[in-house]
Amino acid sequence: MNDFPTPQAVRGADLQQALLRPRSVALYGASDDVRKMGGRPVQFLQRSGFAGRLYPINPVRTVVQGLPAWPNLRALPEVPDHVFVLTPTETVLDAVRECGELGVKVVTVLASGFSESGPEGQAREAALLAMAKRHGVRLLGPSSLGVVHPATGLVLTANAAFAEPDVPPGKVFVASHSGSMIGALVSRGKARGVGFAGLVSVGSEVDLNIGEICSATLDDPEIGGYLLFLESMRHGQQLREFALAAQRAGKPVLAYKLGRSAAAAEMATTHTGALAGEDDVADAFLRDLGVARVGVLEALLETYPLAQRIPLGRPLRRVGVVTTTGGGAAMVVDQLGIRDIEVQGPSAATLQRLADAGLPCTPGRVLDLTLAGTQYATMKGALAILQSAPEFDLVLAVVGSSARFSPELAVKPIIEAAAEGTPLAAMLVPDAPQALAALTAAGVPCFRSPEACADAIAALAHRRMPRPELALTLPDLQGARPLSEAQAYTVLDRLGVPHAPHALVPLDAPVPALPFAYPVVAKVCSAQIPHKTEVGGVLLNLQDARQLQSALGTLRARLREHAPAIEVRDALIQPMCQGLGEVLVGYRVDPETGPMVMLAAGGIWAEIARDRSLRMAPVSVATAHEMMDEVRALQALRGLRGKACGDLQALAEAISALSQLARHPEWRVAEAEVNPMLVLPEGQGVLAVDALITQA
Amino acid sequence: MNDFPTPQAVRGADLQQALLRPRSVALYGASDDVRKMGGRPVQFLQRSGFAGRLYPINPVRTVVQGLPAWPNLRALPEVPDHVFVLTPTETVLDAVRECGELGVKVVTVLASGFSESGPEGQAREAALLAMAKRHGVRLLGPSSLGVVHPATGLVLTANAAFAEPDVPPGKVFVASHSGSMIGALVSRGKARGVGFAGLVSVGSEVDLNIGEICSATLDDPEIGGYLLFLESMRHGQQLREFALAAQRAGKPVLAYKLGRSAAAAEMATTHTGALAGEDDVADAFLRDLGVARVGVLEALLETYPLAQRIPLGRPLRRVGVVTTTGGGAAMVVDQLGIRDIEVQGPSAATLQRLADAGLPCTPGRVLDLTLAGTQYATMKGALAILQSAPEFDLVLAVVGSSARFSPELAVKPIIEAAAEGTPLAAMLVPDAPQALAALTAAGVPCFRSPEACADAIAALAHRRMPRPELALTLPDLQGARPLSEAQAYTVLDRLGVPHAPHALVPLDAPVPALPFAYPVVAKVCSAQIPHKTEVGGVLLNLQDARQLQSALGTLRARLREHAPAIEVRDALIQPMCQGLGEVLVGYRVDPETGPMVMLAAGGIWAEIARDRSLRMAPVSVATAHEMMDEVRALQALRGLRGKACGDLQALAEAISALSQLARHPEWRVAEAEVNPMLVLPEGQGVLAVDALITQA
Repeated sequence: MNDFPTPQAVRGADLQQALLRPRSVALYGASDDVRKMGGRPVQFLQRSGFAGRLYPINPVRTVVQGLPAWPNLRALPEVPDHVFVLTPTETVLDAVRECGELGVKVVTVLASGFSESGPEGQAREAALLAMAKRHGVRLLGPSSLGVVHPATGLVLTANAAFAEPDVPPGKVFVASHSGSMIGALVSRGKARGVGFAGLVSVGSEVDLNIGEICSATLDDPEIGGYLLFLESMRHGQQLREFALAAQRAGKPVLAYKLGRSAAAAEMATTHTGALAGEDDVADAFLRDLGVARVGVLEALLETYPLAQRIPLGRPLRRVGVVTTTGGGAAMVVDQLGIRDIEVQGPSAATLQRLADAGLPCTPGRVLDLTLAGTQYATMKGALAILQSAPEFDLVLAVVGSSARFSPELAVKPIIEAAAEGTPLAAMLVPDAPQALAALTAAGVPCFRSPEACADAIAALAHRRMPRPELALTLPDLQGARPLSEAQAYTVLDRLGVPHAPHALVPLDAPVPALPFAYPVVAKVCSAQIPHKTEVGGVLLNLQDARQLQSALGTLRARLREHAPAIEVRDALIQPMCQGLGEVLVGYRVDPETGPMVMLAAGGIWAEIARDRSLRMAPVSVATAHEMMDEVRALQALRGLRGKACGDLQALAEAISALSQLARHPEWRVAEAEVNPMLVLPEGQGVLAVDALITQA
Repeated sequence: MNDFPTPQAVRGADLQQALLRPRSVALYGASDDVRKMGGRPVQFLQRSGFAGRLYPINPVRTVVQGLPAWPNLRALPEVPDHVFVLTPTETVLDAVRECGELGVKVVTVLASGFSESGPEGQAREAALLAMAKRHGVRLLGPSSLGVVHPATGLVLTANAAFAEPDVPPGKVFVASHSGSMIGALVSRGKARGVGFAGLVSVGSEVDLNIGEICSATLDDPEIGGYLLFLESMRHGQQLREFALAAQRAGKPVLAYKLGRSAAAAEMATTHTGALAGEDDVADAFLRDLGVARVGVLEALLETYPLAQRIPLGRPLRRVGVVTTTGGGAAMVVDQLGIRDIEVQGPSAATLQRLADAGLPCTPGRVLDLTLAGTQYATMKGALAILQSAPEFDLVLAVVGSSARFSPELAVKPIIEAAAEGTPLAAMLVPDAPQALAALTAAGVPCFRSPEACADAIAALAHRRMPRPELALTLPDLQGARPLSEAQAYTVLDRLGVPHAPHALVPLDAPVPALPFAYPVVAKVCSAQIPHKTEVGGVLLNLQDARQLQSALGTLRARLREHAPAIEVRDALIQPMCQGLGEVLVGYRVDPETGPMVMLAAGGIWAEIARDRSLRMAPVSVATAHEMMDEVRALQALRGLRGKACGDLQALAEAISALSQLARHPEWRVAEAEVNPMLVLPEGQGVLAVDALITQA
């Protein structure tokens, strides 16, 4: 709804220019007092040497912080590219109207008090959006702390953190749901020698959202990669389009997303009004789009250089470690291990090459140089051999005390070796800011904690190459309603998802001959009763026609009692089926992330352990097998303890088949859940014995 | 074996004095070259202004680094308290002999090449130990990088990290399996304004181990708490004694233990020769002893001030958060949430008090001061109200950009408020080293990353008050052998653990009348066949005496085939029993951590999901209930989905009863496993239907 292309809406290169490289900026409500929110941007822009023209707007002053001030936007000698509205909530609509009438391209709104603050705010937001749409002006915010673009000195922000004039320039573009985080990132980046190509506080994304903003900047050669700070997964469609375009452009995307715990998910959504998404859905979405999701704050700053060296699609599974400190290396190995990245030792051939070169060559999970003493030649030689060994996707050098005192011993050879061979990264165990700075300046991926190091490697390793079929347009499926179970099976038939045979039998007539043998199960069949057991509408294990006849009477009685207002004519009869095990296979068009497919443990385990795997739909049979590897309960169907194997190939085919719903938006299926899907012994297939589908 | 009290062994105060406050130190193998390992301690001790007498021992020089040198220890004018042996492996034994003959109290050995390096090294280590024992001299190492005690200028180490003379003094005593880590901690502590009361690299703990060293220092008033860097859980008995004594002394113990992942556990043990322990066993051990196990490197430095304010036994469950940055607070809430610490918002009464004081009072999970702007009076007032509210165990202030630019706004009131009321901690979102330094200098617990902050709080929250019964002496249970199942039941009878009735029936005689009804199960019964199913020795569901008779014949045949060398006379007959569910209850005297009790999911889930809970044994019924809360599979017995409840009270009683084995070392039980333990419906109890016990 918030995505409204109008003929005149500013997009693409125009948007990028007005947003990041405006030739002229007006500060609507600029204050002479630098301590006030409205005074900060005037000060910051002057200090940072903003190259464009700057117009403070103030109805009562002719000079603001030494600059000539203007009473209103119409009085300006030109139409500014970008207006930053610093005035209170109540005045925002008027300001945006004025901008629109003049033809301003981008308006950034600082004030809060819109949809997050109740019905009145929602009305205000709707009016704001309509106003912007009418004029084709693009809005950043409300609740945006602004935009920073170091290359042009554009420090267009009310964030107090930018009181320091020297925003470090770099290659990473930051877009953040949290305005305060852009300040925190800049200060931490400065301490760490890491700079930024730009930073945008996107606020509540009423018009411009993270995906569209980042997409508009993709052809900027000054931008090497992206860093997203996400509070929720809102505007998933644009995020998806951006991520796919970024992958094509070869620019890595990193993301930190709040909401790993239920508490924080709730917080993030309460204060923005967004829907609480499930974290594993967000995780699957980001991974499938090739976005590296980091979980450690410091890794936000430290991951990009490694992402540059390990582009999407390049494998990152086999990590080799060389170290001058056993304990320090063990910390990193441990942190990698708990993130499912297993460090492996050099091969026999590589150990032999080390031995031939007179270098340490003790077999083990890491190559420990400790006993040889920390020497330039030792590290230099070891790196040359490890980086030319075929068994590693990444070589990680863990450096001890020498990094602080004698960087010429182990840090220098790392800097020299980083340009060639297998990608190389460094983790420094002591506090060694100068060595970190030297490594960072040389572009070598380097880390100041084992946690950030392992987090960065794992985040990159767990990315998946985006599949072209993910470039789907999401249907609007509001108001979807359930189908009856019988109707659901016709959808499964079209997809080729196997299900148990069934017959529809009138509830109030004699039982006909069935096309399958007894015993059977009888279920009330109605689109209005999606949860049959809640009305007592399922009767199992009926042995013959007599029992079935009696069961139909029971079902009628229960319907009268529990669902008197619903007219149900038929019962759905199925043979009793048994499998080796059961699973849940689901498909859902998530309002933010789009079509997702899920495989989960069946029965009671689905509730007790969150044992499930998710992907963006559709998925291939091969991907379905990957999903099965991620559900622990499935191990029970792999012949554990001498038990029979389930037909896992058939299950993979069924998962893939159900996920093909994503290719048929015209079927308008919002959700499809097969629960249970019975898994029969190997060679005998799988069988859906219940299905619930909702359709818009 | 390595713990050998001899009449003359130096212990307690004597040990502490010679180790940390020696009046005289000899450097055996001191070098004139400061770049060599043997030259470093000479330089470091001179630079640091060591107050005692210093004797370089060098057979060929009369002066070493400006100090008079001595040809050997006998030539010295006194017997030094502490000798640091810097010479190569082959010479260590002679050096220790010389020390022993002279009556030196403590010898620190730098060289490696002992038990970690194969059979020859093992023999060398045994000789070294025997030599030390004979003379009552205590050994630190081998492979020790030495000892540092800032208060007396004792920088007795070969760790290059101590080339900087100013080791920051503080209240925390560090004992580390990794020698390089003491250097890393000092450099990181320096950068963070955190100092140390002492640091010991314990090496391979052939004689002195971490527990004994720390115990010897417990009455030092300069030491406020302990920080252990553990590669494995070796010498658990002394660690246990130390932890209990530290709790009595009111000194917090923090630990970082490697081996959370299988890969790192393997690494740590490969290079020390210790046994690989299971990480959850170590975790339960540390928690039960009241040790706070931190998992983030930075938290090692940052946790102690909070541990001082939240002593063991003081609850830490209800964390209140006040913030000047929504995004920053959400990061901390998220990190706490994934560690099972749920942040809760102010109560209605507290919100009312905030409102009455004219302060922000929006209900929510955190008290967000953002909209009020960051003001001294706002933070000051909010802290006063939160710290006097009854609903919080800890108040956490999360400070945004102002921490860097204007510490007088939000950091100053935190420093002022920290002395009184509910304990207070701070997390700073930007890079703000000066504010961190000010908070640290004022003793306020403060954190520079959300991960370390949450890790520290969770580590302290998850400690358990040590129970006095844990002060047990571990029996030596080497060579334990299985009992037969029938013998195992007699042990369960003594403990009061309910089990199914059984009868022993000769395998080769007519079936007698049974004291219980058919159907029954027949199992071969022999101490030599602990795993009955491996010989096909279990036959289920025998309906009558005829079937049982036939089953006995089958068992005889299977024994002839699969275990021809074992003479088995009896079968154990039990009625077929069924429960609502089954669990595994186990007891084990772990060689390092001592008696442990375990509850695990039964059946296939024990293998698929590591769904288990561990405690040091014995446990009370109340503790057994806590364990049951930690096993997810147990939820299936709590009436989930309208199913019947299991008799969980009986299960708790059985767990507690089995764990009482720890009170009976004279029974010499090394291991007892009840698998399965059937859980019957509420009120009907539990039943062990198989048991395996090994006894020394």
